[in-house]
Amino acid sequence: MLIFRSILIFILFFFSNNLFAQNIDKPLNFIVIFADDLGYGDLSSFGNPTINTPNLDKMVSEGQKWTQFYAGSSVCTPSRAALLTGRLAIRSGMTSSKARVLFPDSKNGLPDYEITIAEQLKKVKYRTACIGKWHLGHKKEHLPLKHGFNYYYGIPYSNDMDVPKDIMRKKGGYYNFMSNPENYIIENFQVPLIQNEKVIERPANQNNITRRYSEETIKFIKENSDKSFFIYLAHNLPHIPLFASKEALGKSSRGLYGDVIEEIDYGIGEILKTLKNEGLDKNTLVVFTSDNGPWTAYKDNGGSAGPLRAGKGTTWEGGMRVPTIFWLPGIISPGIINQIGSTMDLLTTFSKIAGVPIPEDRQLDSYDLGPRLFENNPTSRNHIFYYRGNELYAVRLDEYKAHYITEGEYGLYGGKKIHNPPLLYNLNKDASEKYDISKEYPDVIKKINRIVTEHKQKMIIGKDLLIERGD
Amino acid sequence: MLIFRSILIFILFFFSNNLFAQNIDKPLNFIVIFADDLGYGDLSSFGNPTINTPNLDKMVSEGQKWTQFYAGSSVCTPSRAALLTGRLAIRSGMTSSKARVLFPDSKNGLPDYEITIAEQLKKVKYRTACIGKWHLGHKKEHLPLKHGFNYYYGIPYSNDMDVPKDIMRKKGGYYNFMSNPENYIIENFQVPLIQNEKVIERPANQNNITRRYSEETIKFIKENSDKSFFIYLAHNLPHIPLFASKEALGKSSRGLYGDVIEEIDYGIGEILKTLKNEGLDKNTLVVFTSDNGPWTAYKDNGGSAGPLRAGKGTTWEGGMRVPTIFWLPGIISPGIINQIGSTMDLLTTFSKIAGVPIPEDRQLDSYDLGPRLFENNPTSRNHIFYYRGNELYAVRLDEYKAHYITEGEYGLYGGKKIHNPPLLYNLNKDASEKYDISKEYPDVIKKINRIVTEHKQKMIIGKDLLIERGD
Repeated sequence: MLIFRSILIFILFFFSNNLFAQNIDKPLNFIVIFADDLGYGDLSSFGNPTINTPNLDKMVSEGQKWTQFYAGSSVCTPSRAALLTGRLAIRSGMTSSKARVLFPDSKNGLPDYEITIAEQLKKVKYRTACIGKWHLGHKKEHLPLKHGFNYYYGIPYSNDMDVPKDIMRKKGGYYNFMSNPENYIIENFQVPLIQNEKVIERPANQNNITRRYSEETIKFIKENSDKSFFIYLAHNLPHIPLFASKEALGKSSRGLYGDVIEEIDYGIGEILKTLKNEGLDKNTLVVFTSDNGPWTAYKDNGGSAGPLRAGKGTTWEGGMRVPTIFWLPGIISPGIINQIGSTMDLLTTFSKIAGVPIPEDRQLDSYDLGPRLFENNPTSRNHIFYYRGNELYAVRLDEYKAHYITEGEYGLYGGKKIHNPPLLYNLNKDASEKYDISKEYPDVIKKINRIVTEHKQKMIIGKDLLIERGD
Repeated sequence: MLIFRSILIFILFFFSNNLFAQNIDKPLNFIVIFADDLGYGDLSSFGNPTINTPNLDKMVSEGQKWTQFYAGSSVCTPSRAALLTGRLAIRSGMTSSKARVLFPDSKNGLPDYEITIAEQLKKVKYRTACIGKWHLGHKKEHLPLKHGFNYYYGIPYSNDMDVPKDIMRKKGGYYNFMSNPENYIIENFQVPLIQNEKVIERPANQNNITRRYSEETIKFIKENSDKSFFIYLAHNLPHIPLFASKEALGKSSRGLYGDVIEEIDYGIGEILKTLKNEGLDKNTLVVFTSDNGPWTAYKDNGGSAGPLRAGKGTTWEGGMRVPTIFWLPGIISPGIINQIGSTMDLLTTFSKIAGVPIPEDRQLDSYDLGPRLFENNPTSRNHIFYYRGNELYAVRLDEYKAHYITEGEYGLYGGKKIHNPPLLYNLNKDASEKYDISKEYPDVIKKINRIVTEHKQKMIIGKDLLIERGD
């Protein structure tokens, strides 16, 4: 019967996306698995030599591997805001010139005005869960339950925050402290674990946190198998400090970092098994992606961007292009997709599938991926805007990328440089951004310049909400 | 019946490798597909974002993807000598301090004394073919027919050799000439195409040469389907100059370099189809690998080493670690293999499978890969010696690699540096060779030093046969 429904869904798609949603009793479920600081080159199917990710690789071979897919920003808070709202973080105030992200002493969070994917899907009675790292405001009024989620289980900000100051000072400051795996002890990190709106554990036991996130996801699937659901599973690893359970520790030849990713992969295997056992594998769209590139300052405790240049914090490809997989066997036809995509596109894509109108009272940066996922047609997205903080550093148009400003990685701090004319790279031919071709293609630069001008003219900037701290 | 035979083969393996070979009427066929200058990061299954290699990716998902597999050298002639003889090229004289490779005016070739895989397999009546680039001596007395091959079809040296001198001079010398795709015209390259021992075309029509190599392979398979056969298919591309057929040209978003690789991949698809149609897919072991890393001096006309450092010519990982796949569905169990392997291991591996005794009158550098291919056990290889010319630059032992000397890529020429103590990297944790850990692991260096001493003491160096030129 489920297979029949899948076929029906597929046929309906060819007639009308709207029809589709209105004609079936239960639209597709969605699970977004969002890793933290996992680089483009950190999965075996994306070229890692020693990290083994058989479950993600299976998703690749059964689904679509998107090789030109971008996070909304190169760092946590704005990237998460962008994914959930379908808008660049500069519009929601979730980025800043002064602070990279929200901190435990930040005063604000994602504004009520913003509409999240969860709020969109709730309009058509989806059950919604946020499991894992939130990082869009830790106060009760900013937590997931205020943003369309029925259930929340996770930590409110990054796992490296909340180190008692005397410990950090004794160990030589932030980078020295975080670089040494001997400091990866639960007690050193006072980050709370929250269920719904209540702290249930502090410090959160990070040793088994990845496993618990996977288990919570499985539980939510089972409890809601007769309803449509949306699960946003935002693992807080492999962001440093690294933790793995007894079962995973020492298993990967890549060392602790590999153990961590292989444990995430293991959980994904269990989740897919559950979908199958519950008869939901034919109507649950699973997306895997990452919030930004690897934090390379941490050497082998950080990840790899594979062939891409630089990592987290930068607007080089390594900072924002993330390994992305869409999985829905029988409906999404398997293949490697070179089309440009963004985590911001999920809001429109999911809304269309579920038959929820797209908000028209605000600027969105979200394009429907449906044509590529279901019909092998191109989507309307042909560009990426790369912001660092609230400054536009680079723009991709089709295969070309112009860098107006470049700057080094967090923790390595290469100097900020302004380029006039911008550096220009052909990302299809030169994914590693090695060969500047600005002199050969002045017309491409002109074309991108025009897009930048238009983008800046139309941009309505949200009030900077990261800047207020200290309570 | 074939399936039954496969099962029989499999069972026999568990009892004895020797038994195995003696108890079936027709041992496994072997096809080695050897690409030229194709980098670790040039296949989609090894992380390339824009080169689509669906047939090689299928081999990966049905077979074994070896992520730590090495060419015998970082440049053509010594790499080919090493693969075919199971010996480091310094032993056979196929490397030199003065010349990288053999040239059209070289006086010598692979010595008669050497025993190739083809000669080994001929001892048990295999039919053998060398299709593609030879580069182990272009004179009649050095061509494949003198080294155990029943059939030869291909070019005798690299496709960039034999450019008329006046043309090269007019266009600004070798690197300028080769960097410009406008010069990739058949007439500019006077390299001959040889069938058996006779020149049948000069200049070789390189536009369709990849396609013709695939077709020759298919023809040989069909003609020998009732016998055991060994085919050494050594494509002369993607070595510059790049050529693709009308059918492939302009198809890849990676540009000409992508077209070339996608055409090789297409041919592999046709070869696998032929094996299936001939009922040979269950008893033909297909190996795909490359002769060395990418020639990065040619920018987007050269390939990518993915996450690995540097490329062709160097003893960094990008120079010698190559994307390698073993395919024999139903017998080789699929998976990602982190074990160290070398193209030099093919001689022993194939000999064991075919039941041919390993030569005992000479030093070999060849280890049986059978335990890993067929039984999920480790092999005896735990090291790699990295030579540049006839000098030992680096040594890998298990996950550690010590660099005694480093030097830049051909065409980029970073200076030669001697390191004492050597640089040390953990390749399992740091495949990109970014983080020198020599200070932290002095004992590992001592251990590798001992191996170097022993290796040098025992080494019997062959007479340098690359040095004599000019006829």
